[in-house]
Amino acid sequence: MAYEHMPGLAFGGWVCNETAMKVAFQGERGAYSEEACRAHFGDSLSDIVPCPRFRAVYEAVASGQADRGMVPVENSTAGSIQENFDLLLEFGLVVVGEQSLRVRHHLLALPGETIQSLRQVLSHPQALAQCDSFLRKHSLEPVAEYDTAGSAKLVATRRAPGVGAIASRLAGTFYGLVSLAEGIESNSHNYTRFLALSKTPAVIAGPAKTSLLFATVNAPGTLYRALGVFASRQLNVTKLESRPTRKVPWEYVFYLDFEGHAESPSVVEALEELKPMTAMLRVLGSYPAAPLQLET
Amino acid sequence: MAYEHMPGLAFGGWVCNETAMKVAFQGERGAYSEEACRAHFGDSLSDIVPCPRFRAVYEAVASGQADRGMVPVENSTAGSIQENFDLLLEFGLVVVGEQSLRVRHHLLALPGETIQSLRQVLSHPQALAQCDSFLRKHSLEPVAEYDTAGSAKLVATRRAPGVGAIASRLAGTFYGLVSLAEGIESNSHNYTRFLALSKTPAVIAGPAKTSLLFATVNAPGTLYRALGVFASRQLNVTKLESRPTRKVPWEYVFYLDFEGHAESPSVVEALEELKPMTAMLRVLGSYPAAPLQLET
Repeated sequence: MAYEHMPGLAFGGWVCNETAMKVAFQGERGAYSEEACRAHFGDSLSDIVPCPRFRAVYEAVASGQADRGMVPVENSTAGSIQENFDLLLEFGLVVVGEQSLRVRHHLLALPGETIQSLRQVLSHPQALAQCDSFLRKHSLEPVAEYDTAGSAKLVATRRAPGVGAIASRLAGTFYGLVSLAEGIESNSHNYTRFLALSKTPAVIAGPAKTSLLFATVNAPGTLYRALGVFASRQLNVTKLESRPTRKVPWEYVFYLDFEGHAESPSVVEALEELKPMTAMLRVLGSYPAAPLQLET
Repeated sequence: MAYEHMPGLAFGGWVCNETAMKVAFQGERGAYSEEACRAHFGDSLSDIVPCPRFRAVYEAVASGQADRGMVPVENSTAGSIQENFDLLLEFGLVVVGEQSLRVRHHLLALPGETIQSLRQVLSHPQALAQCDSFLRKHSLEPVAEYDTAGSAKLVATRRAPGVGAIASRLAGTFYGLVSLAEGIESNSHNYTRFLALSKTPAVIAGPAKTSLLFATVNAPGTLYRALGVFASRQLNVTKLESRPTRKVPWEYVFYLDFEGHAESPSVVEALEELKPMTAMLRVLGSYPAAPLQLET
């Protein structure tokens, strides 16, 4: 599989050159995860497999029902990093791409409705909370539902007057709703980072990033020494997160992204030096580095 | 204010010696945040201030309506780290304590109901997802609501037969419901970390931890050099998270916890050495280190 940078694309993403990719994601049609699939795979996206749960996304990829999975790992409305990393290890899938998506909430309603004619707005509690100021300003009653796209589907199927939904633009298009307002979240720092998963590693042309999981015994300086193997080789660490394992006292798990390919000589060397400092070390995958999405 | 370790307490927490503490949290009565307040403040908790939004918690502390605020910063069902850190900076409050809470979901119902007599279960979507296996095993229909404790309140007030809620044990006690099953989440790694906030810094007897936010220009080795100021002084970094700011290209924000007090000589020295490497540096507070909660 080869990727190339397509600056003209919406979201400025990297797209896969392979055609006819079948991609699994968690959520209803029109979910933000489907927006991320479209942004990432572009014209090569041939089919999508909506899954009720994250585990089902991994099952679809592992069984060959889908070529790729697309899962949120940061700032998601429903997913958590921990769950997706646990599943990644359990299913032995590899990370082959990343996609950052600016989550812009739309107020969707049946054609003919206006902001003034609405009384209730359905959505996931986190989306409702993110749009709290907008809802209060327009005296709209928030009503909790399972997810954002599912709320749009409910509005379209129930056809009750005065009821809207907060979801993606794509969900509006998909369920035949109109967008009465867009970008209604209070905080514009509303990004979700997705990872593309596969059964086989990516073949990359151009700059790569690599994701690692490793565990170390916590002692002053352990993490510093671990980072030293990257710093001494000019390998730029772009993300680092630590958390206690809670299974082994004082053992910490680190999730780390850096610029470089796991098979390049300097990275092979760095990982060899890192290994004896760790209780566990797993390369999650190397993939084309996506450009950072800045505020718009 | 002085803290001391009370090993006999539930949750093995640290409690504040001050009496008559009025504490604000986000959520309904019986929320997991209220459980965290009780675990953290113990007998010194004189009154609680439930707030509809995180912002209201900060307003209550800043205005003096409450002595402390208690906010989730990791693995929460509704809050996000970013939002609470943004609010912490905006309101100029300081971190004076930490509390780790094992979130154990209970299936709550009206007295007389059994697992077999229930048809529907109300809760926050994330709690429903965490208990998905249990719900499917017992053929219970999940129904999304705003939050966990709010769902328990609805079950108690509507009094509809066959309807239960997933929430904390405390919510069950508070709304007169019985617990039909406990620990019904699939993943036992279900912890939430809370921070206690105040207008004034904590006075600490015993080992302290300090939380920092700082921004650096991203370049190979910058983070490594930043961690070196702690490693060279045997200051143990217990948590580290980085994320791009998205406002300034290539600038990263780090959230870092370490063992030590911001006013101890070696920490003062470390922070002086760190400052010129950063574009922004804020000490969020020093507080008594809570013991790590291991799996039970």
